[in-house]
Amino acid sequence: MTTLTRQDCIALDQHDKLAPLREQFSLPDGMIYLDGNSLGAQPKAAQQRAQDVIQQEWGTDLIKSWNKAGWFDLPSRLGNLLAPLIGAKENEVVVTDSTSINLFKAIAAALDIQVNNPEHTKRRTIVTERSNFPTDIYMAEGLTRWLDRGYRLHLVDSPEELSTAINQETALVMLTHVNYRSGYLHDMQAITAHAHAQGALCIWDLAHSAGAVEVDLNAAHADFAVGCCYKYLNGGPGAPAFIWVPQRHQAHFNHPLSGWWGHATPFSMAPSFEATKGIRRALCGTQPIVSLAMIECGLAIFAQTSMADIRLKSLALTDLFIALAEGRCGHHPLKLVTPRNQQQRGSQASFTHPHGYAVVQALIERGVVGDYREPEIMRFGFTPLYTRFVDVWDAVEILRDILDQQSYQVDLQRNAVT
Amino acid sequence: MTTLTRQDCIALDQHDKLAPLREQFSLPDGMIYLDGNSLGAQPKAAQQRAQDVIQQEWGTDLIKSWNKAGWFDLPSRLGNLLAPLIGAKENEVVVTDSTSINLFKAIAAALDIQVNNPEHTKRRTIVTERSNFPTDIYMAEGLTRWLDRGYRLHLVDSPEELSTAINQETALVMLTHVNYRSGYLHDMQAITAHAHAQGALCIWDLAHSAGAVEVDLNAAHADFAVGCCYKYLNGGPGAPAFIWVPQRHQAHFNHPLSGWWGHATPFSMAPSFEATKGIRRALCGTQPIVSLAMIECGLAIFAQTSMADIRLKSLALTDLFIALAEGRCGHHPLKLVTPRNQQQRGSQASFTHPHGYAVVQALIERGVVGDYREPEIMRFGFTPLYTRFVDVWDAVEILRDILDQQSYQVDLQRNAVT
Repeated sequence: MTTLTRQDCIALDQHDKLAPLREQFSLPDGMIYLDGNSLGAQPKAAQQRAQDVIQQEWGTDLIKSWNKAGWFDLPSRLGNLLAPLIGAKENEVVVTDSTSINLFKAIAAALDIQVNNPEHTKRRTIVTERSNFPTDIYMAEGLTRWLDRGYRLHLVDSPEELSTAINQETALVMLTHVNYRSGYLHDMQAITAHAHAQGALCIWDLAHSAGAVEVDLNAAHADFAVGCCYKYLNGGPGAPAFIWVPQRHQAHFNHPLSGWWGHATPFSMAPSFEATKGIRRALCGTQPIVSLAMIECGLAIFAQTSMADIRLKSLALTDLFIALAEGRCGHHPLKLVTPRNQQQRGSQASFTHPHGYAVVQALIERGVVGDYREPEIMRFGFTPLYTRFVDVWDAVEILRDILDQQSYQVDLQRNAVT
Repeated sequence: MTTLTRQDCIALDQHDKLAPLREQFSLPDGMIYLDGNSLGAQPKAAQQRAQDVIQQEWGTDLIKSWNKAGWFDLPSRLGNLLAPLIGAKENEVVVTDSTSINLFKAIAAALDIQVNNPEHTKRRTIVTERSNFPTDIYMAEGLTRWLDRGYRLHLVDSPEELSTAINQETALVMLTHVNYRSGYLHDMQAITAHAHAQGALCIWDLAHSAGAVEVDLNAAHADFAVGCCYKYLNGGPGAPAFIWVPQRHQAHFNHPLSGWWGHATPFSMAPSFEATKGIRRALCGTQPIVSLAMIECGLAIFAQTSMADIRLKSLALTDLFIALAEGRCGHHPLKLVTPRNQQQRGSQASFTHPHGYAVVQALIERGVVGDYREPEIMRFGFTPLYTRFVDVWDAVEILRDILDQQSYQVDLQRNAVT
């Protein structure tokens, strides 16, 4: 594969049926953006959507827009647009709050359901990975410390440890489907089945898989899922997150963030909480409408293709990047962190380099935007909707040039963000 | 006062030093907007601010904007701009999440602090009003049910009951400063002092007072406060809310929503939570940047005047509305719900009418936008930054005409929103 040329990459783009979708994104001239796994690029339609919400819905229609523009229903409407991307059914997803807050609701609801599990008092571990995105661990810490019922986190150091860590003492398994640093993709179906066999419930964080890999939550029989709309879904900076509750769990989805948007009759102004039926009981308070509304622009682009096609191109892009980086920069101390096995790989490729941070800064200076994660990890995300094969070629060539010339400042202070 | 004429109202506007600020808002032609207590009007600058964030910060600078555009610091920066409006010091306020979520954090932190109170196990009531905005009650219900430590809500039916309801069994007093329906304004200083004398802590919800009445949280020695940015602060539909934690409580502000934005070193990606010092420990997850950024446009208008001047005009507007409504529509069954006493009045005036819902709909048809709240309450909010004295005159004349002509549909189905 390393015998490929730039011309070959251009040819791949010419035969790529997703290629025309790139036109729907606003991307800066001369930038090769390989950081869509941190902040997705801007759909061109987002500007107009925001303007419509601000000028017409807010500025002109004002309070009427809660009904007329469907603001109140927006979390459900967006959830239904998102559902097909993750194997959810209609009315199983709402877009609301942040991923951290949604995870809190899911953990709380899962532990509440587990109270009905035989010998539930012996089930006191929440199994997750030490390398999970930290906020997931923090939210579980916060909830369990505060519940003060003896729950403890069991942090495993590798995916292989999960099979023994998940056992009869496990109340809950909480994993991020694709690891944010390494890009390791868990086998959702197998882990969920194992958790269930042991009597545990299983929550999946799809922050790095929604819109990036094929996800079928219902086929995997997962219990709950949360995820992020501002990465591969291109919903805008800090866009509200989503939460999935399958129909079978909705009647038992009890969590302490019982705000008025989750009430059975929110406008009756009743002085006591009564949870609504269905997915909207995962809602809490009023949502930031402008940020929320723009999420539709990203989802509308996904509606023009399929996750199967996106996945095919994603794997082709990461395969190409890995092959070119190892083939053309193999004389440098680059070490692949992301699994070579396609079935274990998300839509990113991460390499360590002893001067990883400095090299990433040098790449950014040259217009190749990846990012850095401790320790020593250079992380490159590939968004099939707007990343071209020729971008992969050019990015690797610039990386090679930087490494060959050692044109990076090894004493650069590390100050990585997000 | 009812001998006033429309010309007198125009003269009041001509002498109103706040009058020029109206130009900074986008208001529909021909509409008299008296619903800024539900959704504040659009500052004209918001459109440009959103465009800058979307085109430049998101579209062009992409991931760099977390630092370059100060996205990560936005909750604190906006909090510092908001602080002077509520008597908060620098670094005591952050703008983040929803009011419901922030209230949850404040209740949790307050109960945690109370564990150190002598005989805390005897303190098991949370005192609030039955007429409080429902989500405040719901959040307290959710939290206490989950804590399962015997806390119970004590709902009082009138402000007068507070003095006896707040006693040695009280852990926490949780009140909305200005009642959303009646516009009743609590005496924050007196109630807080009474609560403290009884050993209780006091949380204030400023949803209907921030930007509407003078608030001095530090002078009142309040314990915690939360509030809304999309009503009188004109931050945009569903804009993120704020939370105030005074310096004296910051080191003990422990709550279960311990997300990575509240971590001491959020970018170290440590696998265990350690709360940051200071106000940012009230943060949880990533925030919706476009909705958040627009809040600054509303706050920038407040920076051009003072809450003292705003309060003076607010009272003049509500005095005028009450006098005109009672003077010119006094032959109709209108009954004032809002206190006549200025010291007990927020920036709204509410009247009951047996056909309140239908009358409000008829008013909206005629361009006078107030809203309806059960039971029978017609609610009119007055935002001194953009409401004119002549608007008050015209609104009352239209109300009088509707009532005189009985030009409202008494059998209209009620379907009030927000």
